[in-house]
Amino acid sequence: IVNSLLLYYLSIHSRHGRECVSPCFSLQQRNSSTSPKIKVDLDNSTGVAVLRMQSPPVNSLSLDFLTEFCINLEKLEMDKSCRGLIITSTLSKVFSAGLDIMEMYGKSPERCGEFWKAVQEMWLKLYGSNMATIAAINGSSPAGGCLMSIGCDYRIMADNPRYSIGLNETQLGIVAPFWFKDTLVNTVGNRAAELALELGLLYSAPDALKIGLVDQLVPEDQVLSTAQDTMSKWLAVPDHARQITKSMMRKQTIDKLLSNREADITNFVSFITKDSIQRSLRMYLEMLKSRKA
Amino acid sequence: IVNSLLLYYLSIHSRHGRECVSPCFSLQQRNSSTSPKIKVDLDNSTGVAVLRMQSPPVNSLSLDFLTEFCINLEKLEMDKSCRGLIITSTLSKVFSAGLDIMEMYGKSPERCGEFWKAVQEMWLKLYGSNMATIAAINGSSPAGGCLMSIGCDYRIMADNPRYSIGLNETQLGIVAPFWFKDTLVNTVGNRAAELALELGLLYSAPDALKIGLVDQLVPEDQVLSTAQDTMSKWLAVPDHARQITKSMMRKQTIDKLLSNREADITNFVSFITKDSIQRSLRMYLEMLKSRKA
Amino acid sequence: IVNSLLLYYLSIHSRHGRECVSPCFSLQQRNSSTSPKIKVDLDNSTGVAVLRMQSPPVNSLSLDFLTEFCINLEKLEMDKSCRGLIITSTLSKVFSAGLDIMEMYGKSPERCGEFWKAVQEMWLKLYGSNMATIAAINGSSPAGGCLMSIGCDYRIMADNPRYSIGLNETQLGIVAPFWFKDTLVNTVGNRAAELALELGLLYSAPDALKIGLVDQLVPEDQVLSTAQDTMSKWLAVPDHARQITKSMMRKQTIDKLLSNREADITNFVSFITKDSIQRSLRMYLEMLKSRKA
Repeated sequence: IVNSLLLYYLSIHSRHGRECVSPCFSLQQRNSSTSPKIKVDLDNSTGVAVLRMQSPPVNSLSLDFLTEFCINLEKLEMDKSCRGLIITSTLSKVFSAGLDIMEMYGKSPERCGEFWKAVQEMWLKLYGSNMATIAAINGSSPAGGCLMSIGCDYRIMADNPRYSIGLNETQLGIVAPFWFKDTLVNTVGNRAAELALELGLLYSAPDALKIGLVDQLVPEDQVLSTAQDTMSKWLAVPDHARQITKSMMRKQTIDKLLSNREADITNFVSFITKDSIQRSLRMYLEMLKSRKA
Repeated sequence: IVNSLLLYYLSIHSRHGRECVSPCFSLQQRNSSTSPKIKVDLDNSTGVAVLRMQSPPVNSLSLDFLTEFCINLEKLEMDKSCRGLIITSTLSKVFSAGLDIMEMYGKSPERCGEFWKAVQEMWLKLYGSNMATIAAINGSSPAGGCLMSIGCDYRIMADNPRYSIGLNETQLGIVAPFWFKDTLVNTVGNRAAELALELGLLYSAPDALKIGLVDQLVPEDQVLSTAQDTMSKWLAVPDHARQITKSMMRKQTIDKLLSNREADITNFVSFITKDSIQRSLRMYLEMLKSRKA
Repeated sequence: IVNSLLLYYLSIHSRHGRECVSPCFSLQQRNSSTSPKIKVDLDNSTGVAVLRMQSPPVNSLSLDFLTEFCINLEKLEMDKSCRGLIITSTLSKVFSAGLDIMEMYGKSPERCGEFWKAVQEMWLKLYGSNMATIAAINGSSPAGGCLMSIGCDYRIMADNPRYSIGLNETQLGIVAPFWFKDTLVNTVGNRAAELALELGLLYSAPDALKIGLVDQLVPEDQVLSTAQDTMSKWLAVPDHARQITKSMMRKQTIDKLLSNREADITNFVSFITKDSIQRSLRMYLEMLKSRKA
């Protein structure tokens, strides 16, 4: 059943004419190069860092990617001269296609657990960052890409109806964990989150604006410059007051994962290593390969 | 005071030109017939059941009605071939007028408790159903009728401003219990629920759409067909993932009633059997009768 | 840093052309007169009291003001003939400019604690009032003025884009306490509250309506009469049912402060008596004085 629905999903996805970013899980070209997947530029005059995701074809969130992301985030967090962070993509048409399917297919439980811990870490660092954080979403941003976006303080998206964003896990027969859900509820409210998650909806940029999943749409070539302008407004607020206020708003949601972190990893590993799920992933991989051929 | 306000309420209700569905509580014609109050058709090719409420004049939620409703729901829930449920009414102008006043007037505490337990059961089964559930609201839907609607996953209402929906208990001097309130807050958010409940507001179909109390308005003759079309989208989502996601969204609200079920019954019984409330109900009944005459 | 940001804030505030109500904290002209800062008129025929704040120049919430406010509120609360309360201002252009900075500058910890307890008391009495409460916001209403407004059941504001409302504490380097935050979240939802509080946003009347911070805009000369008309709708609802419903909606938020009241006072006193904060307040005071000169 899951397999046939995956097929169905892919076909309707294409039919709707959206960019063919592999939704939810993505298949990264393996690449033994050690070139960095992330590039960070910190402007010392403004205190604003721009973090560019540059891991073609679709900025899949592999363990390597997440590790590099977290190391960069931690460095910036500890750098007193850095007060604001803008996250964007160097790739055309895609912000991030979400979690890398290869990290979940045919891997040992230990490795799967290590991967999931890195996903948690990415969210914990981002949602709880002391920096002002803005997602400059210059392409599609399904699943893990959406999580990264709603982990920021503000979201500016390219005004292109072919780009979509959403937590679409349900469409693939899997379930967004509770902290994905909590973050979405905090962003769009309970009812919109219920609809979005039960149906695994991907929203076009205009629809995402309507439900409040993003805060602002601008022409594609102005996403980064608008993020820079917006950041200057955020940095006009005294850091200390903004940070305490942010913590007051988000602490409860963060603490919920912190106190259930091991159980959440155990749940993920036992789910993803199931034979039925592994069979679905294999079929999904074969489809992605045949689509590329 | 309550009595005079009941009178006032009825008069303004009529003045506003809405359909004269007895609001909140309804007076069912007693009827010794054993003809079913509910008709269920399950289409095995689609896995979609249509549950039609057919208890004239206004589909009042009597103990008999609720018992029949719950038995049907349970049968469908256990039928693996049934994946989706559409609830609608065969009556003209009314979906359901809510709880049957005759179950609360001049009845023993035991009987009142039995009735209230059936109201709880209806909500518990519906709000927690593993099926995808759509309310095809083809008429007015005050109080208990509104509760039934917001217990579903999706609400499609006839685009007729003369039809209204809402939890209007406060207008009659009674109070929606906490789980009515929780379900409404989950649907329209805290502030809209506060206004709706403190004022006991009934919303016309267009106003209900505006605050998110229903999801979609369609011409009256397309309510059911639109529900069928919408259901096919819900059933395109893998059942297992949708069910776990739905449970993640609703479990906390359901558990709150489950762990306070007896206290909630006790509260209702002690409130409804008060002399002052019984006097109000008698006056209300007499008004309904004189209006019919 | 805080000091320079205060300066920055004041300058952008003026630049945007809003009324020059000292935002957040206000400097009251000292006045040894014992003339009442508040005037209450109770219409016994309707059961509606109008509470007029008349403490020029900007209805600052000083300890004297708050004490007088609470005494009046308590009297009305215990007066069975009073069912509804409308709060408005006799001053041109300002509803209330919020907490009086003079209560926080150069005062002993004991006095600061006494002041903060009065702020808590004002909110506890208002948010938990058994009366139907309407804020007739006929001028700007930053910080404490906004808290007073969102403590009511309904908000009608003058349709003048030069009037603003919001919890702008963060802009001044201080932090709105958790119960300010909870009240705002209850009113406008989590995401709008997050943005509003992290950026310390003041909303023009039209923008306040858009996010639901106020319920209705009317021409300036109709604010009070519209409040009177609206009140008659609220009083058409049976008091007892409305009061229980209101308590059901607000009790959890109120209990949270009640069970943390002493800790909240301790936090406030230790924060406000810090040298760095006192220095900021002195600079702020000097700026206000020079602006008046």
